[in-house]
Amino acid sequence: MSAHATPDQIEDVVARLDEAGCAAYVTEGKDATVIGAIGERELLAALPLEGFPGVEQVLPILKPYKLVSREISPDPSVIDVRGRRIGHGWFGFIAGPCTVETRAQTLETARVVAAEGVTMLRGGAFKPRTSPYAFQGLEEEGLRLLRDARKATGLPVVTEVMEPDKVDVVAEHADILQIGARNVQNFSLLKRVAECGKPVLLKRGMSTSIQEWLLSAEYVLAGGNPNVILCERGIRTFETSTRYTLDLNAIPVVKKLSHLPVVVDPSHGTGHWEYVAAMAKAGLAAGADGLIIEVHNNPAEALSDGPQSLKPDKFAKLMAELKPLAQVLGRSL
Amino acid sequence: MSAHATPDQIEDVVARLDEAGCAAYVTEGKDATVIGAIGERELLAALPLEGFPGVEQVLPILKPYKLVSREISPDPSVIDVRGRRIGHGWFGFIAGPCTVETRAQTLETARVVAAEGVTMLRGGAFKPRTSPYAFQGLEEEGLRLLRDARKATGLPVVTEVMEPDKVDVVAEHADILQIGARNVQNFSLLKRVAECGKPVLLKRGMSTSIQEWLLSAEYVLAGGNPNVILCERGIRTFETSTRYTLDLNAIPVVKKLSHLPVVVDPSHGTGHWEYVAAMAKAGLAAGADGLIIEVHNNPAEALSDGPQSLKPDKFAKLMAELKPLAQVLGRSL
Amino acid sequence: MSAHATPDQIEDVVARLDEAGCAAYVTEGKDATVIGAIGERELLAALPLEGFPGVEQVLPILKPYKLVSREISPDPSVIDVRGRRIGHGWFGFIAGPCTVETRAQTLETARVVAAEGVTMLRGGAFKPRTSPYAFQGLEEEGLRLLRDARKATGLPVVTEVMEPDKVDVVAEHADILQIGARNVQNFSLLKRVAECGKPVLLKRGMSTSIQEWLLSAEYVLAGGNPNVILCERGIRTFETSTRYTLDLNAIPVVKKLSHLPVVVDPSHGTGHWEYVAAMAKAGLAAGADGLIIEVHNNPAEALSDGPQSLKPDKFAKLMAELKPLAQVLGRSL
Amino acid sequence: MSAHATPDQIEDVVARLDEAGCAAYVTEGKDATVIGAIGERELLAALPLEGFPGVEQVLPILKPYKLVSREISPDPSVIDVRGRRIGHGWFGFIAGPCTVETRAQTLETARVVAAEGVTMLRGGAFKPRTSPYAFQGLEEEGLRLLRDARKATGLPVVTEVMEPDKVDVVAEHADILQIGARNVQNFSLLKRVAECGKPVLLKRGMSTSIQEWLLSAEYVLAGGNPNVILCERGIRTFETSTRYTLDLNAIPVVKKLSHLPVVVDPSHGTGHWEYVAAMAKAGLAAGADGLIIEVHNNPAEALSDGPQSLKPDKFAKLMAELKPLAQVLGRSL
Repeated sequence: MSAHATPDQIEDVVARLDEAGCAAYVTEGKDATVIGAIGERELLAALPLEGFPGVEQVLPILKPYKLVSREISPDPSVIDVRGRRIGHGWFGFIAGPCTVETRAQTLETARVVAAEGVTMLRGGAFKPRTSPYAFQGLEEEGLRLLRDARKATGLPVVTEVMEPDKVDVVAEHADILQIGARNVQNFSLLKRVAECGKPVLLKRGMSTSIQEWLLSAEYVLAGGNPNVILCERGIRTFETSTRYTLDLNAIPVVKKLSHLPVVVDPSHGTGHWEYVAAMAKAGLAAGADGLIIEVHNNPAEALSDGPQSLKPDKFAKLMAELKPLAQVLGRSL
Repeated sequence: MSAHATPDQIEDVVARLDEAGCAAYVTEGKDATVIGAIGERELLAALPLEGFPGVEQVLPILKPYKLVSREISPDPSVIDVRGRRIGHGWFGFIAGPCTVETRAQTLETARVVAAEGVTMLRGGAFKPRTSPYAFQGLEEEGLRLLRDARKATGLPVVTEVMEPDKVDVVAEHADILQIGARNVQNFSLLKRVAECGKPVLLKRGMSTSIQEWLLSAEYVLAGGNPNVILCERGIRTFETSTRYTLDLNAIPVVKKLSHLPVVVDPSHGTGHWEYVAAMAKAGLAAGADGLIIEVHNNPAEALSDGPQSLKPDKFAKLMAELKPLAQVLGRSL
Repeated sequence: MSAHATPDQIEDVVARLDEAGCAAYVTEGKDATVIGAIGERELLAALPLEGFPGVEQVLPILKPYKLVSREISPDPSVIDVRGRRIGHGWFGFIAGPCTVETRAQTLETARVVAAEGVTMLRGGAFKPRTSPYAFQGLEEEGLRLLRDARKATGLPVVTEVMEPDKVDVVAEHADILQIGARNVQNFSLLKRVAECGKPVLLKRGMSTSIQEWLLSAEYVLAGGNPNVILCERGIRTFETSTRYTLDLNAIPVVKKLSHLPVVVDPSHGTGHWEYVAAMAKAGLAAGADGLIIEVHNNPAEALSDGPQSLKPDKFAKLMAELKPLAQVLGRSL
Repeated sequence: MSAHATPDQIEDVVARLDEAGCAAYVTEGKDATVIGAIGERELLAALPLEGFPGVEQVLPILKPYKLVSREISPDPSVIDVRGRRIGHGWFGFIAGPCTVETRAQTLETARVVAAEGVTMLRGGAFKPRTSPYAFQGLEEEGLRLLRDARKATGLPVVTEVMEPDKVDVVAEHADILQIGARNVQNFSLLKRVAECGKPVLLKRGMSTSIQEWLLSAEYVLAGGNPNVILCERGIRTFETSTRYTLDLNAIPVVKKLSHLPVVVDPSHGTGHWEYVAAMAKAGLAAGADGLIIEVHNNPAEALSDGPQSLKPDKFAKLMAELKPLAQVLGRSL
C-alpha cells in the first residue's frame, strides 16, 4: 500500500481478497503497510487490485503458468517426431532453406543437410514478410515440395503456419508446425495448433519476455497438446551490428523454469552467415536441445534471407566442428 | 564492398544489378569501393545482394513503402467514420472501457464518455490475453453490447479483431476494426481487413519500428483499403516504471513520412491511470490526430487493465484540461 | 523462498534478518513460503539475501532513495539560479549552441535566444565525444566565451563538466554545472559536484532507469547539495528513426516520485531539428519544469550536432507557439 | 538528398565537400539524388552535412575507428600481463571476488581460484555503486589486500579505477586497470589510462553499441596504449529474468572488426550464479579469448553482488567442465 493509504483502504483490499476466497496477511512497517495474499494463482491474477485506492504496487510471487513449469513436471520432456527425438539429452538438428523456392533448390539442399546427419528439415512455404511487395512463398505448392523432400531424405519436415485456417493443410504435409516470432502472441493460432495435436515449434517473439513466451506455450499445453519445442531466435535491442540479439541467456533460464525442450536459431538470431557458426557452437554449449540453421545451395540467388544462409561447404565445416563439441558435452549429433 | 573485395566480385555485383534492370555506378575510394544502384525499389529490395561474396553491407536509400508515403500523397488523409472525421485537423477522440464486461458497465461508460463529447466509443469483445487462464472477452455477445451502446449514444464503435475468420462478424457490428499490437505483423489478418474495406485502427507493435509499422499499413492500402488510422501505444524498453514507453516521437516522425492520421493511446502506453492525463496532453501537443483512452465506471472491479482506466470524474477533469489546450493548438475537441 | 526450500533454509534467512535487526514474518502458502522483512531500508538493501540457499527472489518494497523523494519533501523544490527560478510553476527555458565554437557564434546565438526571452544560456566547452578524432571543445577558452556571453545578455550559464578535477574551474565561470548522460553514474564526479554546491543539471543516461537516475541525484543531495535539476534527454531503444527515444513518460513519473524539477531536452532526445518543436510542446504539456534547446546561428557549419540545432527563425517560431500553450497550462514563459 | 531537394541545395553540398578536400559524385535516380563522398574519414565525419538544407540522411560507409580495426592490424593482438598472455589463442581466465571485503576472504578466494588454474585474479577496491548508501569498497586498503593476494598466489591482479586522479595509485598496485561499464564513455578517464600505459580491461557499457565500445578502445590506443582487452558484460534489454542480457553475439562481431582480445563476464552478464556455468561455456564456444568470473568463499555474506558469485565447489565443477571443452576447441586452460 502507498505510504498515505488509510486504514479504510487497507480494509477494502483485505475484504476483496476475502470475498475472492484468498487469505490476507497485513504487515505494518515503519514506512509502508504490506498485504500478503495467499490463494489460487488464477484467482489472484484475476483480481484488479492495482485499481484499488491506496494500492501502490502489486508484486506477483507465483509464476502465472503451470503446465509448462518444472514444478508440475520435474523431468525434461522428450518430443518424438516420427521417431526422431528431441529433449532430455536427445539433440534435434534442424536445417534447410529459409524459403522453398524451386524443386531443384529444395531437393538439393535437403540432400545436403541429410548427408551431414541432421535430424529434421526446415523450409518456408508460407512466409511472413514485412513488406507486401516481397515474395510471399510458394504456399501449398511449397508444402508439396517439402513433402517430396521428406520422401527423398526420410527427414521429418518443419514449416511455418501463419493463420488458423491453414493449420489443417500445413499439418497434412508437415511433421512440426512452426509458429513464427511475429505470431507468438497470435492466440487464435495457438489455440488452433493445440487442437491439431501435431508437435509445435514455438519461436520467441522479438520482444517477448521469457515469461510471456512460456505463457504462449501454456496456451498450447492447456489446449491439450503437450508437444511444444521452444525456439530462441533473437530479441530486439539497440545493437545494430547484428540483425537481432540472439539471447542465449534464455537457454539456462528456460531450463530452470520449464521442462520443455528449447532450440536455438543462430541464422535469424544474428542475420549474418559469418556469425552463425560461433553462435551455433555457443548455443550447444549453453545447453540447448537443438539447433535450427538455414542452408541454401546458392545464397546469392536466394529469394529471402540470403545473407544469413550457409553454403553447403560452410555447413559441412560447422557440422565437423559441432560433433566433437557435442561429444565432450555429453550429447550426440 | 569490403576492403578486400576483388575486381571479379565487384563485377559480379554489377552484372547482377544489370541483369535485374538496375543501373550500377561504381565509385572507388581510398579504403573501399562503393556501388550505387538505381532502379525500381521492389526490384532492388528483392535482390539478395548481401549474399554476394565481397559485399560488406547494403544500405537502402529509398523507403520500402509507397502508398502510405507523403511522397505519393502529400496531403494528410481524412478518414470518415459514419460522419465523424479524423485527420488533417479533425481530431478523433475515442474512449470507453478496455473490455466489454456487462450491459450495465458498457452502457453506463458509453453514456459517460458521450456526455463528455468524445467522437467514438472503444471496447474489447475479443481480447488478446497473455495468459490462457485470463478472461478472454464476451466475444459475439460483447459485439452486441457494443452495437447497443452505439444505438444509445450515436457514437461509432472501435473494437479489436484477432483472426481472419472473425473479420466479417466484427465488421457487421463495428465501425472501425482495431488490429492490436500483437497482430501488427499478422499479415493474413492485414490482408483480410484490407478486403473488408472498413476503416482500420492499426496499433504499433511493442517492438515494431516505425518503418515496419508503415509497411503493415502498406499491406492494407495495397489490398485496396485506404482507410487506416495509425495508433501509437507504447514500445518495449528497459524502463519498468511504466508498463511500456509511450513513444510520442513517433508522432512527428509519422507526420513527416506518411499522410495517414495517427492517434495516441496513453492508457496502454503507460499502464497507470496516474500518468494518462499528462501523456494525453503531451500527445495532443505533439500533433496527434486523436486520442484513445480507457474509462471504466469502476476500475477496481474491472476484469482487465483496471490500473490504467480512468474513473468518470478523472476523465471529465482531463476533458476540461484538453479543450483549451486543443483550442490554442488550432484543433477543436 | 523456492518451492523446494527446506525448513532449515527458511530458518537461516529469518536468523540473518534477526541478526541484522530486522523483523521477519513468515507466511506459508500452498506453493511457496514468503518471508516479509521489516527494517531500515539501508540495512535491508545491504543484506545479501539472494545468496542464501533456498531463496528464489528478493522483491524490495521500499524505494532505495530518500532525500530526493516526495515522501521526505512533499512540496516541489524551487532552484534559484542568480534570480532565475525553476520548479513549482517557475519554468526554466535554457537555449544556446551545442558547442561553443567561436566568439561571434557564441555571442550572436546568445543574443538571439536572450531576445526571445529564454531564462538561461547553454553551451558546451568541454565536450564528451564518442570518437577521439572529433572536436573536443574549446575547453577553458570556451568557458571564457560563455562568461562573456553572460555579461552581454545577463543570462545565467549552463555548461558541462566531465571530470572531478575540472569542477572548480567550470564552477568559477558557470552558474549551473551539467552532468552529461554518459556521466550520470560517474559517482566520483557526482560526489565532487555535491561538494561544490553550485546547482547541477543532471541528465538521464541513455540506458538509466528512472530509479537509477534518482539514485544519482541522491548522491548529490546526500553530499550536501540540494540544488539538482533533472533533465530527460532520450533513452536508447530499438527505434532508429530518431537518434534516441525521448521518454516523456519520465515527466509524470518523476513528478510522482520526487520533488526535484525536471526539464526536457528535445534536441538530443530526437537528434533531428524537424522533430524538436513537436517534442518541446509535448514536453511542456506533459508537465516539465523547463526545456533545453539547441540553437545555432548556422547549423550547416556547426562543429557538432548540427542536425539537431534550430536556426534562429525556427527558434523564434517555436517560442511564438510555446507562449500561448504555456499560458493555457498555467505557466509563464 | 530529399525528393524535393533543389539543384541549388545539391550544389551547396557538393561545394562544401569540395571545400573540405573531398570528392563528390552525384547520381540522379528516379526518386532521389544521391551524393557519394570520398575523402579522409576524419574530414568526412567532421562535416555537418545533415544540417544542410535538402539533405535527407547521411550514411557513413567507412568505420569511424582505425587503430583498433582489423584493417590496420590483420593479426589478433596478444596482451602480455607479467608473463600471462591473452589473445590469439592464449586464453585468459580471470576469477576472484566481486569486492575485496576482508584479508581472510580475499586471500582464501585467491588461493581457491589459483588452485583451480586461473591466470589472473580480480577484485574490487573502488566500487561504483548505484546507491550512495551502499558499501563503496575498501579503496586503498583494498588495493593493499589485492597486492598481498598477488604475492601469495603469483597471479596478476585486475581491479577497477573510477576516476583520473586514482589512476596512479591503482596502477601502482594492479597489473590490469579495469574500466567499468558505467565509465566506458568517461573520456577523461580513458585518456588518463592511455597515458599510464598499463594494460586496460575495457568493459562494454550496458547500452553501448559495439561501434561505440570500439571507439572508446580507440581513445586508449590513440593515446599511445595498445594493451586493451575488451570485456562483454551484458547489455540492457527489456528482459528481466536475467539482470542484463549477456550479448555473446558481440564475440564474433568484435573478432571480425577488431584485432583486440575480448573476454566474457557471465557473472555480471546474467546476475545469477545459476546461469554462470552455462554462459561461461557458451562464451568459450563463441570464441572469447577469456572469461572473468566472480567467486566468493561465502556468497551469503558478500557485501555486494552475492547472488551472482560462485562458491568454491561450484567453481571447481565449472573448471572441470571447461577444460575438456577448451581442448576440443583448440584452446588450453
